Amino acid sequence: MQQSPHSPQSQSLSASAVDSAVPLSNLQQTYAVIPRERPYTPLLDRVDSPADLKTFSSAELITLVDELRLFVLYSAGQSGGHFGANLGVIELTVALHYLLDTPQDQIVWDVGHQAYAHKVLTGRRDQLGTIRSKTGLTAFPERAESVYDTFGVGHSSTSISAGLGMSLALRYQGRAQTVACIIGDGAMTGGMAFEAMNDAVQQDADLMVILNDNDMSISCSIGGFSRHLAMLWESGYQVDISDAGEPILCQRPDMQAFDRRKRHKEQRDVPQLEDNLFKAIGFTYFGPFDGHNIPELLRVLSLAKQVKGPVLVHIYTTKGKGFAPAELDPVGYHAISSLPLEGSQLLESSKLKAAKDSTVANKPSLKYSQVFGQFLCDKAAQDNKLLAITPAMEEGSGMIEFAYEFPERFFDVAIAEQHAVTLAGGMATQGVKPIVAIYSTFLQRGYDQLIHDIALQNLDVMFAIDRAGLVGEDGATHAGVFDFAFLRCVPNMLIAAPKDENECYHLLNTCYEYQGCTAVRYPRGVGTGATITQPAQIYNVGEAVVESVLGQDDAPKKLVLLAFGTMVETAQQAAEVIAKSPLFASSCQLQVVNARWVKPLDTNLLETLVEQGITHIATLEEHMIMGGAGSAVNEYLLNESAAFKLHRPAICNIGIPDRFIAHGSQAEQLTDCGLDVDGVVKQLQQLLS
Amino acid sequence: MQQSPHSPQSQSLSASAVDSAVPLSNLQQTYAVIPRERPYTPLLDRVDSPADLKTFSSAELITLVDELRLFVLYSAGQSGGHFGANLGVIELTVALHYLLDTPQDQIVWDVGHQAYAHKVLTGRRDQLGTIRSKTGLTAFPERAESVYDTFGVGHSSTSISAGLGMSLALRYQGRAQTVACIIGDGAMTGGMAFEAMNDAVQQDADLMVILNDNDMSISCSIGGFSRHLAMLWESGYQVDISDAGEPILCQRPDMQAFDRRKRHKEQRDVPQLEDNLFKAIGFTYFGPFDGHNIPELLRVLSLAKQVKGPVLVHIYTTKGKGFAPAELDPVGYHAISSLPLEGSQLLESSKLKAAKDSTVANKPSLKYSQVFGQFLCDKAAQDNKLLAITPAMEEGSGMIEFAYEFPERFFDVAIAEQHAVTLAGGMATQGVKPIVAIYSTFLQRGYDQLIHDIALQNLDVMFAIDRAGLVGEDGATHAGVFDFAFLRCVPNMLIAAPKDENECYHLLNTCYEYQGCTAVRYPRGVGTGATITQPAQIYNVGEAVVESVLGQDDAPKKLVLLAFGTMVETAQQAAEVIAKSPLFASSCQLQVVNARWVKPLDTNLLETLVEQGITHIATLEEHMIMGGAGSAVNEYLLNESAAFKLHRPAICNIGIPDRFIAHGSQAEQLTDCGLDVDGVVKQLQQLLS
Repeated sequence: MQQSPHSPQSQSLSASAVDSAVPLSNLQQTYAVIPRERPYTPLLDRVDSPADLKTFSSAELITLVDELRLFVLYSAGQSGGHFGANLGVIELTVALHYLLDTPQDQIVWDVGHQAYAHKVLTGRRDQLGTIRSKTGLTAFPERAESVYDTFGVGHSSTSISAGLGMSLALRYQGRAQTVACIIGDGAMTGGMAFEAMNDAVQQDADLMVILNDNDMSISCSIGGFSRHLAMLWESGYQVDISDAGEPILCQRPDMQAFDRRKRHKEQRDVPQLEDNLFKAIGFTYFGPFDGHNIPELLRVLSLAKQVKGPVLVHIYTTKGKGFAPAELDPVGYHAISSLPLEGSQLLESSKLKAAKDSTVANKPSLKYSQVFGQFLCDKAAQDNKLLAITPAMEEGSGMIEFAYEFPERFFDVAIAEQHAVTLAGGMATQGVKPIVAIYSTFLQRGYDQLIHDIALQNLDVMFAIDRAGLVGEDGATHAGVFDFAFLRCVPNMLIAAPKDENECYHLLNTCYEYQGCTAVRYPRGVGTGATITQPAQIYNVGEAVVESVLGQDDAPKKLVLLAFGTMVETAQQAAEVIAKSPLFASSCQLQVVNARWVKPLDTNLLETLVEQGITHIATLEEHMIMGGAGSAVNEYLLNESAAFKLHRPAICNIGIPDRFIAHGSQAEQLTDCGLDVDGVVKQLQQLLS
Repeated sequence: MQQSPHSPQSQSLSASAVDSAVPLSNLQQTYAVIPRERPYTPLLDRVDSPADLKTFSSAELITLVDELRLFVLYSAGQSGGHFGANLGVIELTVALHYLLDTPQDQIVWDVGHQAYAHKVLTGRRDQLGTIRSKTGLTAFPERAESVYDTFGVGHSSTSISAGLGMSLALRYQGRAQTVACIIGDGAMTGGMAFEAMNDAVQQDADLMVILNDNDMSISCSIGGFSRHLAMLWESGYQVDISDAGEPILCQRPDMQAFDRRKRHKEQRDVPQLEDNLFKAIGFTYFGPFDGHNIPELLRVLSLAKQVKGPVLVHIYTTKGKGFAPAELDPVGYHAISSLPLEGSQLLESSKLKAAKDSTVANKPSLKYSQVFGQFLCDKAAQDNKLLAITPAMEEGSGMIEFAYEFPERFFDVAIAEQHAVTLAGGMATQGVKPIVAIYSTFLQRGYDQLIHDIALQNLDVMFAIDRAGLVGEDGATHAGVFDFAFLRCVPNMLIAAPKDENECYHLLNTCYEYQGCTAVRYPRGVGTGATITQPAQIYNVGEAVVESVLGQDDAPKKLVLLAFGTMVETAQQAAEVIAKSPLFASSCQLQVVNARWVKPLDTNLLETLVEQGITHIATLEEHMIMGGAGSAVNEYLLNESAAFKLHRPAICNIGIPDRFIAHGSQAEQLTDCGLDVDGVVKQLQQLLS
């Protein structure tokens, strides 16, 4: 890559400028407590844009790193949010913005959980505390938010593709701007990162990829790629970069901070050069380097920036770096809740919280993911054909207990949704029953595989689709609002949507017992608090349930609220409001129906209702109106219903309008879409008027 | 992997048994002509199942290979179909079925273009000539067709995932059966193959992957992976396998047949051991071996089968092996048409055919892919912002001429749909206008990327979606019948569906000129033969066209046929039939509307039509009824139309029913779905009655 014309003279910042007796990783402060007051950050306060960094000395940059880390700690304490990954890339963020001329040069983040420091340095310092709130900053880079956010990210493994696109477009236009993509070792397991590397070499693109290796294999699965990184560590070698930009093989320098890295079982007495995957694919490889050593980072990155063609710089970082509790428990401190207003300074890490949560089974606050976890354990104890697959979402999908109790039946395949789906297909051919536990938004990555490798062959696989509907603070990138549309057009699929935790349990059981491909789709977080009843039931496939009838049989208006999943409760409440309203109390009968199944629909019930002379049908779903469950009802009534040909009630589809719903709390998002009780009542009144 | 109990004694078949003076690849016959008569195949005729192979001697196996190759040639001449890849794996297929105990042991093919020999050896010899016809064998492995077809394949890069699923399920059940996955060097670029390798190492699964390296980088893009394979060749080394199953590094033996492999520019005087990607990811690697040398294949595979953990055996094969014209032109002979009944023996290779086709621009037989190609060239000449991307479908997407004329604007990213989409997103951030040319069925692989990396950021990217609707002989795996459903629920997307070639040209232009994310969706093959007019037009977005009005204004029944894309012509013909029928001629007015846009719909026209008192609306589309374009019409009329509240015409959605449509000609498939003129007439008559 070409040196940008305004880059600082990084030569003055070579490693030799730093006292070599100081362990390279340990120049920075480590904090034990998250500050509740805005910390004193005089240097940081001078940085309103990356240009303000250019005059900083090496020592000042190191101090800036401390201030920035403390500030991010403070802000995360205020807002909650992703945490560990952000603390790990403070030095890298400072180094990149110091070396590059952003926004002309482009920094492309992968899975945006790392962009807090980036946001602070690019003019959003004073807004960082608002992150994830409805009107605040987004948790991820977002193009609409800042010119420094070059590419929106929410799902993993995209940065090399996006960065390569930028690099190729810039080259085509003769613009000599640097593109630097950051990608984590976890994200690297996603196949599209490999596709992008393959193509970057083909194009001989000037592209700098920084592999932020924060050793996430401690928590997640030790796949071949992670094993490879471990073996690069154990080789004892480092590929340094010469002043001419050439690789120099040398013994790896001391990196005490990373000595805990013993991921791979094989230990070697003699360093041995390993096959290098990045070199094999055709990248120029440098590393591994200490990603917390500012002078070293500046030296390496400024040299790598000048190397032509695709370059990968492999750095080690520590997740949660500089905050002692997070360094000790990087998985637990992946994300945190905001600090309580009063009381203990001790934050609750997500892992502790999950552990606590898991002890309160059958309490009103049972999360849907925990219901799934309970089902898994219960069913696995009875049926040894049950196997379960997750693409790197063991904790989020509620599978910790299952994985502990049934390790030989638990398959965490890493961030690899395409593979997860087809793996299940392969398993199903051998007489076992695989369950793919996956977030709705991530199933979009395995869509083709679901069609071809499962549904087309009608293989016996169940999808447990978590985080369906609106998901709150994670925003549009994580919303699961397309699944009814993209699933129900696929032949052979059964799709169920439980109204509460208890129904979720029994629908999971029902779909599990069904021979064929099924999906149970449930939301993020807690439901109505319904107690799970035993034993597990097998519902009739495609049978809806009339939940309640309000008003008189002889009312001139008869409205059916046909609700899917989470909207059953809302429909019930809305119906009660309408039933009590002076305008409709005497003139309207309301029936609330829990549809329970999106596919197949309960066409018998629909026929009966239409025959009985209902005048209005409202469908309700936490999903796009376009192509959703309501649309299925329309299709049935208009095309196939015999009763509807004789008597045609008015139909109204209530759901998410045709726009991306920004982050905010789930409640705020529902209100925004008119899917809270008030919003539904208004739409029903309009329908009835 | 464990030796299966009934495996033959392969020791008697070691390479040493063969005269070492004979070049290892050249034991078999090479044919110059495709036989028109059923060849004499006495050995092959004895093989009704793989068990019949077990008693064959080494010499007999070699003869069998000749017979099998000749038989496949003969059959392909009868039926047409994929060709080159099948000829390349004759030896491998024989070796695998000889060594393994199928169907207990599992052979998993990738992109099933290689399974003809497999079908012949597994009891389908006499049906091979029926391949691709409506009632004949499928072109790909299909579970419903044979117990030997372990996993259906149509899309690339799935075999390692599926095979790993089998292997893990077998291990869990304590069943010692071998799983062998075959994958081509082209398919290996698909990211999910990498995801699967990563996971296979994690699971330490007993899995044999056979990399069938037929050097497809000659034709397709030289990505990093392909370059890697080339460098393994140029290293001059081979990793042989010892009798104990250990890797032995040695100088590569003579492989004259593959001497043309000079893919990579760098030439070396001294052999040098390269970084090995498969070893890096954690596989035990053996290779490269001569994939046409039966004794060598048997030796290597029988040893590799006994190695524990994931093993990759790298073999070289020649696409089109044993048929001289195909060996000389492997790309052209990827697939062939069936032999003409009379006349020349000379087959038309697909490349020659494409070249011929491309000279007939603006003739009635212009394919939609050629229309796209013409648009690309015309537009690129005027607008230097245009860049075009294909995931390994340069020829199929009609981009040969564009790639030749504008090489710096043409990006073939290999089989990598996820990457292709996000790459376009990255490009679009830098002020150019990328076009992603992709088959509808393959866009399913880039769905998540389309949502997040394009639509959510409303980036200026156009999708040119080819092979939409029913695609004929390739069958259900390649049908593009879900795209309206999975695209129209995505906010910001514009979706256009041209009625003919000329409209396709102008819709491509219209969407190209639009700032934002758009899709133009057109079918496989030729259309109505409409001549392309110049200059390129910019249509109004969301404006439909009334094509014709038949019958009187004062008719009691007024039917609107709202047709999308290819169904406009069908609707027109069906309307004419109805208008002439005694039953409806006097009582019915018919309007045929070319919707032109699926999103946004022409709601103004819909309002006007409903206000004018139409009594019936039929929507027509070559897409699933569920969630399709008709469904969009339903949603609009039921929810938003003011006119519809006052007067409600009957609505009927005509499209593909909720099942996978088996292979057959496009015409047969349309008839099967009731989407030919007769079928549509019947449905309209029912609606009107």
